[in-house]
Amino acid sequence: MIYFDHAASTPLISDALDVLVKSLQEDYANPSAAHKLGKLSKKKIERVRANILKTFKAKRGDQLIFLSSATEANNLIIKGLELRDSDKVHFSMGDHPSTVVPAQSLQTQKEEIKLHLGGDIDLSDLVNKIDDSSALLILSHVNNQSGNLYDIEKISKEVKAKNPRIHIHVDGVQAVNKIEVKLATGIDSYTISGHKIGAPKGVGALFIKSGVELSAQMLGGGHEEGLRSSTVNTPLILSLATAIDVGQRELSDNFSRVSELNVYLREKLAELNLGIEFPFSFQNTSPYILSLILPQISSDIVLRHLEMKDIFVASSSACSSKAKGYNAGYAAMGIDEAKHKFVLRVSFSRESTREEVDSFIENLNRVIKEIKRI
Amino acid sequence: MIYFDHAASTPLISDALDVLVKSLQEDYANPSAAHKLGKLSKKKIERVRANILKTFKAKRGDQLIFLSSATEANNLIIKGLELRDSDKVHFSMGDHPSTVVPAQSLQTQKEEIKLHLGGDIDLSDLVNKIDDSSALLILSHVNNQSGNLYDIEKISKEVKAKNPRIHIHVDGVQAVNKIEVKLATGIDSYTISGHKIGAPKGVGALFIKSGVELSAQMLGGGHEEGLRSSTVNTPLILSLATAIDVGQRELSDNFSRVSELNVYLREKLAELNLGIEFPFSFQNTSPYILSLILPQISSDIVLRHLEMKDIFVASSSACSSKAKGYNAGYAAMGIDEAKHKFVLRVSFSRESTREEVDSFIENLNRVIKEIKRI
Repeated sequence: MIYFDHAASTPLISDALDVLVKSLQEDYANPSAAHKLGKLSKKKIERVRANILKTFKAKRGDQLIFLSSATEANNLIIKGLELRDSDKVHFSMGDHPSTVVPAQSLQTQKEEIKLHLGGDIDLSDLVNKIDDSSALLILSHVNNQSGNLYDIEKISKEVKAKNPRIHIHVDGVQAVNKIEVKLATGIDSYTISGHKIGAPKGVGALFIKSGVELSAQMLGGGHEEGLRSSTVNTPLILSLATAIDVGQRELSDNFSRVSELNVYLREKLAELNLGIEFPFSFQNTSPYILSLILPQISSDIVLRHLEMKDIFVASSSACSSKAKGYNAGYAAMGIDEAKHKFVLRVSFSRESTREEVDSFIENLNRVIKEIKRI
Repeated sequence: MIYFDHAASTPLISDALDVLVKSLQEDYANPSAAHKLGKLSKKKIERVRANILKTFKAKRGDQLIFLSSATEANNLIIKGLELRDSDKVHFSMGDHPSTVVPAQSLQTQKEEIKLHLGGDIDLSDLVNKIDDSSALLILSHVNNQSGNLYDIEKISKEVKAKNPRIHIHVDGVQAVNKIEVKLATGIDSYTISGHKIGAPKGVGALFIKSGVELSAQMLGGGHEEGLRSSTVNTPLILSLATAIDVGQRELSDNFSRVSELNVYLREKLAELNLGIEFPFSFQNTSPYILSLILPQISSDIVLRHLEMKDIFVASSSACSSKAKGYNAGYAAMGIDEAKHKFVLRVSFSRESTREEVDSFIENLNRVIKEIKRI
């Protein structure tokens, strides 16, 4: 089996699974309990919280709260800032639904971030549109479809030079453990997902810069500094922390290896002369994601053929339950509407190999030729 | 070790752990993925969803959505109904913070449910207060502090006779797998928690009666019928379903056994003549929860002494991160404020034994005498 859909969800790292199972057995108490079993759980959580903040170079006073997913983290920021109707929110239609949909739901003014052909952000256009009413800028660190890696440090610098009060939120779901993440820039909040980095589904984390005022969205017992009520989830949090640790240790090795795979895949596909196009730029992208446009063949059909050969890729973001034909994200990234249904996304993990890439190429070649012949 | 804090969080049922670990290894794909790995996960989820609805006697068209916790479920209902400011919400200050706090946050009219001494609901007072503007009634099925088991069928019948349009939400966290739950009554929504029934922390379910209109609180990819965006969590959901299955099979056996333990504990404690009081009625209560008032001794101090002997109980709801001295829940249930800090909660599981109860009684007796002597 070849699983190239890691950007949608990736298997657990074995250390993260081991930690999870051990913790499920040991840390069953409620971390809010007054007795020592509760306190022991709480202590373990506080230790990994501090470690993660340190790993990502957060500053003293910055917070990290644990929650159930990146979607929850993005919602908490976008709604929890409680913006006024006159405030302006800048966001990209090319981003993930978990930021786009909450942003669209706001009663505020909304300003779309213009993207260059190839997917990069048109920074001068963005900066031009920042004004005194700009209250929130939502960015992804790595786009989940294009792999575009946005220079959040540079963007935040230029944007904050124009309006230092703007809150800059970054969805780091596809960036963490794939590229270096430093939180101590002009970033006010940053979202981390568990199940995209080898931790279980059901856990995420949100970095919140010191001084940011947020109103909680899930109300109740007042956990996580009052920002997220719900029993604090010791096992999932410890497993997330382990996945972060492993990924950070292997970061540069994995990056080099996966970069080679990505280049290799692109070059081999180009050599085949099948008419495959690459809609996104190769500069400043995450090597873990490669989207391609099939030669007038529906990616859904190719996906079916490939899955019969036990090869798994994505035909559209798995994070969206809908999507057929027109895709607002692709449109924002400059892909002609007629080609939206031809987009196929390949996404790698730390365990992806050249043998798998070779087999994928061979099978994709065969599938395209079979379909073209029909 | 004697763990009598199961109402705060209980260890995993071994079958639920096995299913979880297997699923974590097999079902790593995103259930929204278009390929067969995603679809297989989705199929497993839909199967257990249908089974759970059947288990709880839901009717055709009723929904069950999976989410991260009971707190999330309660918040989704209480906020998602999008009530008008003129609407009236009836709730009890004796209930869990995950319903009380969201209810208090509403801009609607609010009406407190009066409780009898002993913790039961004053039904005639409640029905008297129901009028045309009554839009939401929030009940717990079993109170997490008192163990009071409310007759939700009778209450909903009388309340709906007065106003058939009112939405009745029941928090069933302490009821599921402990007493029989039938959803097909006048109940419009019902909350289930994983980690109170031997499934992992991080998963819950919300039953929603056919025809109820809710607006989603977590926005994004539109999962769970558009009611709860976030990657659907195959492993936790399958584990939850297993815990429900096991608990349902053992329901009446466990109920009888735990009922005997509860009676035994009460009788033995009474025999000791330590001055321990039982503030809540013994009629219509869950045997899994027994709160007691210590004879002028802080429950926090007793908790510390007991934990030194590896015995774990609760001094206040572990679901609340705060609480010292005055407790609004106890006050609502008629406990004199001076005694709030003397309340100790014992809560059992299916695995609690008479030997554990004997040892608890012996140690509690010793601890009280030690402290009194000082």
